[in-house]
Amino acid sequence: MQLGIIGLGRMGGNIARRLMLDGHQTVVYDRNTDFVTALGKEGAIGVADLPALVASLNKPRAVWVMLPAGAPTEDTITELSGLLEAGDVIIDGGNTFYKDDIRRGQALEQKGIDYIDVGTSGGVWGLERGYCMMIGGAARVVERLDPLFASLAPGIGNIPRTRDRVSADDRAERGYIHAGPPGAGHFVKMIHNGIEYGMMQAFAEGFDILKTKNSPSLPEDQRFDLNLADIAEVWRRGSVVSSWLLDLTADALASDPKLDGYSGAVADSGEGRWTIEAAMEQAVPVPVLSNSLFARFRSRQQSTYGDKLLSAMRFGFGGHVETPKK
Amino acid sequence: MQLGIIGLGRMGGNIARRLMLDGHQTVVYDRNTDFVTALGKEGAIGVADLPALVASLNKPRAVWVMLPAGAPTEDTITELSGLLEAGDVIIDGGNTFYKDDIRRGQALEQKGIDYIDVGTSGGVWGLERGYCMMIGGAARVVERLDPLFASLAPGIGNIPRTRDRVSADDRAERGYIHAGPPGAGHFVKMIHNGIEYGMMQAFAEGFDILKTKNSPSLPEDQRFDLNLADIAEVWRRGSVVSSWLLDLTADALASDPKLDGYSGAVADSGEGRWTIEAAMEQAVPVPVLSNSLFARFRSRQQSTYGDKLLSAMRFGFGGHVETPKK
Amino acid sequence: MQLGIIGLGRMGGNIARRLMLDGHQTVVYDRNTDFVTALGKEGAIGVADLPALVASLNKPRAVWVMLPAGAPTEDTITELSGLLEAGDVIIDGGNTFYKDDIRRGQALEQKGIDYIDVGTSGGVWGLERGYCMMIGGAARVVERLDPLFASLAPGIGNIPRTRDRVSADDRAERGYIHAGPPGAGHFVKMIHNGIEYGMMQAFAEGFDILKTKNSPSLPEDQRFDLNLADIAEVWRRGSVVSSWLLDLTADALASDPKLDGYSGAVADSGEGRWTIEAAMEQAVPVPVLSNSLFARFRSRQQSTYGDKLLSAMRFGFGGHVETPKK
Amino acid sequence: MQLGIIGLGRMGGNIARRLMLDGHQTVVYDRNTDFVTALGKEGAIGVADLPALVASLNKPRAVWVMLPAGAPTEDTITELSGLLEAGDVIIDGGNTFYKDDIRRGQALEQKGIDYIDVGTSGGVWGLERGYCMMIGGAARVVERLDPLFASLAPGIGNIPRTRDRVSADDRAERGYIHAGPPGAGHFVKMIHNGIEYGMMQAFAEGFDILKTKNSPSLPEDQRFDLNLADIAEVWRRGSVVSSWLLDLTADALASDPKLDGYSGAVADSGEGRWTIEAAMEQAVPVPVLSNSLFARFRSRQQSTYGDKLLSAMRFGFGGHVETPKK
Repeated sequence: MQLGIIGLGRMGGNIARRLMLDGHQTVVYDRNTDFVTALGKEGAIGVADLPALVASLNKPRAVWVMLPAGAPTEDTITELSGLLEAGDVIIDGGNTFYKDDIRRGQALEQKGIDYIDVGTSGGVWGLERGYCMMIGGAARVVERLDPLFASLAPGIGNIPRTRDRVSADDRAERGYIHAGPPGAGHFVKMIHNGIEYGMMQAFAEGFDILKTKNSPSLPEDQRFDLNLADIAEVWRRGSVVSSWLLDLTADALASDPKLDGYSGAVADSGEGRWTIEAAMEQAVPVPVLSNSLFARFRSRQQSTYGDKLLSAMRFGFGGHVETPKK
Repeated sequence: MQLGIIGLGRMGGNIARRLMLDGHQTVVYDRNTDFVTALGKEGAIGVADLPALVASLNKPRAVWVMLPAGAPTEDTITELSGLLEAGDVIIDGGNTFYKDDIRRGQALEQKGIDYIDVGTSGGVWGLERGYCMMIGGAARVVERLDPLFASLAPGIGNIPRTRDRVSADDRAERGYIHAGPPGAGHFVKMIHNGIEYGMMQAFAEGFDILKTKNSPSLPEDQRFDLNLADIAEVWRRGSVVSSWLLDLTADALASDPKLDGYSGAVADSGEGRWTIEAAMEQAVPVPVLSNSLFARFRSRQQSTYGDKLLSAMRFGFGGHVETPKK
Repeated sequence: MQLGIIGLGRMGGNIARRLMLDGHQTVVYDRNTDFVTALGKEGAIGVADLPALVASLNKPRAVWVMLPAGAPTEDTITELSGLLEAGDVIIDGGNTFYKDDIRRGQALEQKGIDYIDVGTSGGVWGLERGYCMMIGGAARVVERLDPLFASLAPGIGNIPRTRDRVSADDRAERGYIHAGPPGAGHFVKMIHNGIEYGMMQAFAEGFDILKTKNSPSLPEDQRFDLNLADIAEVWRRGSVVSSWLLDLTADALASDPKLDGYSGAVADSGEGRWTIEAAMEQAVPVPVLSNSLFARFRSRQQSTYGDKLLSAMRFGFGGHVETPKK
Repeated sequence: MQLGIIGLGRMGGNIARRLMLDGHQTVVYDRNTDFVTALGKEGAIGVADLPALVASLNKPRAVWVMLPAGAPTEDTITELSGLLEAGDVIIDGGNTFYKDDIRRGQALEQKGIDYIDVGTSGGVWGLERGYCMMIGGAARVVERLDPLFASLAPGIGNIPRTRDRVSADDRAERGYIHAGPPGAGHFVKMIHNGIEYGMMQAFAEGFDILKTKNSPSLPEDQRFDLNLADIAEVWRRGSVVSSWLLDLTADALASDPKLDGYSGAVADSGEGRWTIEAAMEQAVPVPVLSNSLFARFRSRQQSTYGDKLLSAMRFGFGGHVETPKK
């Protein structure tokens, strides 16, 4: 099958590669011409701008936009919608807010252009392992594009089958689902990332306790000098917390057990925040997902104004003077 | 009435003063002889050690221990229990863990010595305003010591009466209660402090949002440069959050609106932690009280090991490199 | 001074009353004609619709809208903006989202109509005690309307002055502030409510621990049968947690110590949720404010789907079968 | 090798079986003689009481206690310590609090009896998959018992090796570690369970949002009717949240997508609570681990007293009357 791809960064470039490895043809564009040239050498048809990309594709065209969410994606889709025609399809594979998908799907429908949103998980490992995809859009379009999704997905692999699973639709087992109408793909991916934050923070807190169990503030007979790399490793085998995040933790601790190479100022992306907004819209209590986000906010600051206000109140009622932080 | 007082720090010294102002006699001891001398000039009988203190008191003796919780209090009570005799009473006015009170009450009962625990709130303001006291111990002893408690308490003052309150016991309205058997006083005081942490953190978080509403990261037409001192002041009049903690906030912001004089490394004492332990023993969900404690733990560190582990995992699955914190 | 008032519910009706008590003239309208008739008997000029209200006011007109946030307020302001003329002012005293204020302020500015947002705290007590007001809008308009705000506010009363406060502007001490441009008033009020949720939850958790300290699951010598009404009462005098919310707690516990009259399904309004959104926009960690909101979400459900999933996972790895809830 | 096993429930019985499958000899005891008889038929030597068990073992003896933590384990170890002699070893494989291990280790050392604590993860799957074990005790004893641990552990299996891992000790890769002195094994297992709670709650909250995305309270064009079983399944392939807990979630949702078979009253065991206590001792902020515990506490109640107090306060300041819960 043929696919136009806009945005050849870490994700977009590897998506093109994985598709070509499975025999698909790609027409690729990026503002950075080096990326276009590089993929051209690997078999892609490189083009210099969006009109050229549209002109190079067979009808009905399919164009995958793999750009940062927000203005870069929005502007590109606006331009594309003026170049494409009825029957073509735009696929947004980035990290778009699902309400933007709903809005875009409705707007493009007026022009007869189909809109597909794909929540894509896989990170730097996707080229090799395949991409886990959550897809929103009209069923007939998702089905037409199936060869692309099937090639990008991890496939059933050697992962044990789920007990009692009975389904006429085996796509989930091969690593992709049609989640619902436009927006549903990114919605499911958004919640995925929210859960990811929570799982990561659970490990972070647990390992923090393990690490500080050697603190001189504890009674001497209750201190343990634990080997965190070994602990992560042993939990990978047969324990309830075994997971890909634990595998990554074991990787990190094997090479840098003190984690001195990391600043600990942890970024967050839109999905974590939107997950909390969705929870509030639906009145779902999410203490773990929200606290995971807040831990990241906090990690990026030396002190909050709120902390200082606590100090000020304590001084006010008790005359307490705080000592500087360690 | 007559009272022996051990420990003449900020709290103990002012307790002696407030009692003397109301005509009571005090026999006072502190390791620091300067404190003893100073109070002696204000009318107290100063003594040089515990045997002298016990010898100076009329039977049945009453001795108020006002020392840091833990070893200082424990050792003093142990020594006292060897000097006192049946019918005497030991009062622990410090911040003792209530289970220690229960244990001590049972041990001293064997010797016929009574034990009273007094959770005392009032901080540096107690001399002037009076002390809010939560008392544990046998009813007959609490009643015998009533003249002392009545003098120390704030009294009914000009605080409006509680609607519908009908009680034969007006002590609560005068600022002290007999909460129950030994330990009950410190238990109630412990929960008081747990609540205090939660209220303080609520203000801290709210003012943090107000403060950062001027951040350059926000769209320009949605930034406000708010006057936090005025906000604290206006809330003192008629708003639902009016409280003593808000008064203290207004004090602090009036003189130092940026709170530059505070490090923001916020200490915590035993009560906050014990409150969470009690909640766990009773299976009570306490997200607010616990998060208030954790915010203090976090405020004292630059980075946690957990934060670094988050960075390491993000690098592992996404190749993300964190920037240093601001 | 003269003021038009639209919406004569609990808040709007009492605002009219408090203004008339201080000599102002009110022109009042409500869909419910009974409310209009009632206020007419108390001295207000009752009108039958918005055109009549506008016609009855002297120029430049001032109209206070006191309706539920969202559609009722929005529709009314839209209609009003077609009836009023340049130099008139619309005041939104409800619980509007501050971004709606910013938008409206900009739209009305095109027509020369001024827009003022007033965050109003005071609840059912406002008529008697006065309303604490946080005001957004242009300074010259806020100043023109000052006689109204001064009458509605609590005034300096017998609340002790804040130490070190030096300000040329004494409005905060009299119970109202000009917080900033349109939206700033509701923004400050929104954070006020966020803090209120946190303080309420702190009390809720603390009293829950006190209540369950009598649980048969505890060792017998560690149970206390505490008098919660007395505890709330005693904390009102000299303790760090003294506050209006504690006064209300004491009221409630005096008449219904077991709180059997309450379902415990706790509602939440927009401000609590918007506070969390604001915190996320500004990357402020707000574990206490958010958990207070989530506790309310949770309080309204018997079981969450999430709880059931926990049960299902526990059954999956450990064969655990959960017992029904008590 | 030879091992005595006390307690033949779900865990103890299968430990005996897995050892026998690998050629070890077991001497088994349980209060329930049916369990003893059953294992006898599978090759174990069944005995009728502890003296018989001790008499049946070769010196130096090794006895594995696999009983509920607390009194059952404590009493059994006390009895055993009177029957065993210097050089023998007691292994506690249950869920004992690590401070009890430290105490017991010190006490048994006086008699020359060795003490080993084994945190054992594996649940109902351990017989087939092997047990992940975290071991505390003296190195020479852990080494002497190595054949038993090696047989019980999962082994390296087909789990990919950790990148950069360089260690002379390959036990972690085979599924067991010597974590440190007595208590270290159960400490590490305790933190494991704390993390498990956090991961479970992250999934619970995320799936709750997915489930309620179909709520009639949402605008119609923003509702999705998501297939949760498919979502769990697709995430198992290539996504960042892939984990054993997700596998179990997929199992549960495949057979009961509405989870109607579960009450949602979620139990908790000691480890979750002790994890929070350890965090407090070490001043580690653990919002996620603690909120996961509190969600379980909350899940077991219809309403909390705290919820009712919130309702009472809202009625007090705003006249709000709560509607009953759904």
